[in-house]
Amino acid sequence: MADTKASWVAAAAGAAHVHLRAIDAGGDVLSEDHPPRSDWHAAARRLAGEDTLPVVACGLPEGGLRKVPATPIDAALAAQKTHGLTLAAIPGLAQEAPSHVTNGDETAIAGFLSLNPKFDGVLCLPGPATTWAHVSAEEVVSFQTCATAPLGQAAEGWLGLRGAGWDDTAFETALTDTLARPERLSERLAAIQGAGLLLGLEPEAARGRVWGTLIGAELAAMRPYWLGQQVAVVGSGPLAGAYVAAITAQGLPPIRADGAAMLLKGLAEGHRRLAMGA
Amino acid sequence: MADTKASWVAAAAGAAHVHLRAIDAGGDVLSEDHPPRSDWHAAARRLAGEDTLPVVACGLPEGGLRKVPATPIDAALAAQKTHGLTLAAIPGLAQEAPSHVTNGDETAIAGFLSLNPKFDGVLCLPGPATTWAHVSAEEVVSFQTCATAPLGQAAEGWLGLRGAGWDDTAFETALTDTLARPERLSERLAAIQGAGLLLGLEPEAARGRVWGTLIGAELAAMRPYWLGQQVAVVGSGPLAGAYVAAITAQGLPPIRADGAAMLLKGLAEGHRRLAMGA
Repeated sequence: MADTKASWVAAAAGAAHVHLRAIDAGGDVLSEDHPPRSDWHAAARRLAGEDTLPVVACGLPEGGLRKVPATPIDAALAAQKTHGLTLAAIPGLAQEAPSHVTNGDETAIAGFLSLNPKFDGVLCLPGPATTWAHVSAEEVVSFQTCATAPLGQAAEGWLGLRGAGWDDTAFETALTDTLARPERLSERLAAIQGAGLLLGLEPEAARGRVWGTLIGAELAAMRPYWLGQQVAVVGSGPLAGAYVAAITAQGLPPIRADGAAMLLKGLAEGHRRLAMGA
Repeated sequence: MADTKASWVAAAAGAAHVHLRAIDAGGDVLSEDHPPRSDWHAAARRLAGEDTLPVVACGLPEGGLRKVPATPIDAALAAQKTHGLTLAAIPGLAQEAPSHVTNGDETAIAGFLSLNPKFDGVLCLPGPATTWAHVSAEEVVSFQTCATAPLGQAAEGWLGLRGAGWDDTAFETALTDTLARPERLSERLAAIQGAGLLLGLEPEAARGRVWGTLIGAELAAMRPYWLGQQVAVVGSGPLAGAYVAAITAQGLPPIRADGAAMLLKGLAEGHRRLAMGA
């Protein structure tokens, strides 16, 4: 391994940090760094070295936007010299009505499609925003995003539930309840506080109810996307697990793929197109 | 004024602070203090003085809960000696199914009814939670709460809108839109971010849309409360103004009363009942 040299740098921009990884010709990660988004160029220069290896990035405004329907990544990707870097920023996808942008999820979609090129159905990508994308013939036909995660984190903070466990039954009951009457979302969240005070609802049950309520409302809003479709959940951790459980409960057991792996695969796809265009 | 002596202390417990006011026999506020909720007894002792004037409080767990239907405050109120104080804590109101508690809003309702004893209709009390109470014959018949304010503050934080202005037209459009399709709440909030990036939506319009979306969803959930009713909005500041605009847009121009004044009036009502029972 000591001989192995990086050939490019993958950069996935999140809300607060940019996740940098130096990658060798075989696709292995040699080193990584996670600088704050406000000041990530110096860390990227360290990983790119004096050879100024190309940095392939997603989720950055430098990439601009492409309108759907479109392939998740364009056939050719261009690099620019900026901040001492050779930066190839993958454009986000945009949909005008209703107005939504993918913020990096287009790259995870590209990664998923590079492994599943014949996939025809709906991708659900839980994250800071959850993206629902209708994919057909290797194109994103349409997509929408939902603000479920920030709402859930806000509710956990205000109900004092951070760090609590998770009750599956409470999750499923709240999911069914809110799917049937999604217009009651705001009242259903407030009732969780009431149930804690009046009925001794335990924190893990309260937390299950928070996310069941929010994902139930989201599934109701996104029904035209998933109803009768093959769904694949691309994500990681407990949040992705909650979506898998919620979609399974609708009688549609989804395919599951790891979000971080698909994102890296999508960035590699970007690097491949950059190399082809060079 | 130098001669005036306090005769009791009003204590309104909020989420983070307890709002203390020393009140004279004529109902005037002589001095005030706003200690953190976690450590408010010392400040209350200072205002209550060596005479240990009664402290009439609302929004504290010491008050316990009373089930609706019920008058907002019981006919008699008892005081207990605790932490060097003579504390009369007004019980909250509780409703079991769905589970909701009033957290101090019962006292603002009592204040409103002391001035409007014949009121028959629905009170809307915007605040950390918004309480909707059906009031008839001086009793709270039923009530529900909504988590609109914490959701809105979370959305403002995540969209970077804190401190932005307010666009009335954006508020009204989002209100109408979400009232018609409340199940799309989560998608409608996410689309505000998209509209900022794609369509150059200004921060004040984005902020109007956030609150129009959330109050629209709340009005949809609370329709059985307000439809065809006389509504009174008891609250203060821009949030109460937004509710007044939203309810007016449904063709039901509401009565309006100041929330802080009604709360103080309700605490005075508690003091009167304590004095009667003593």
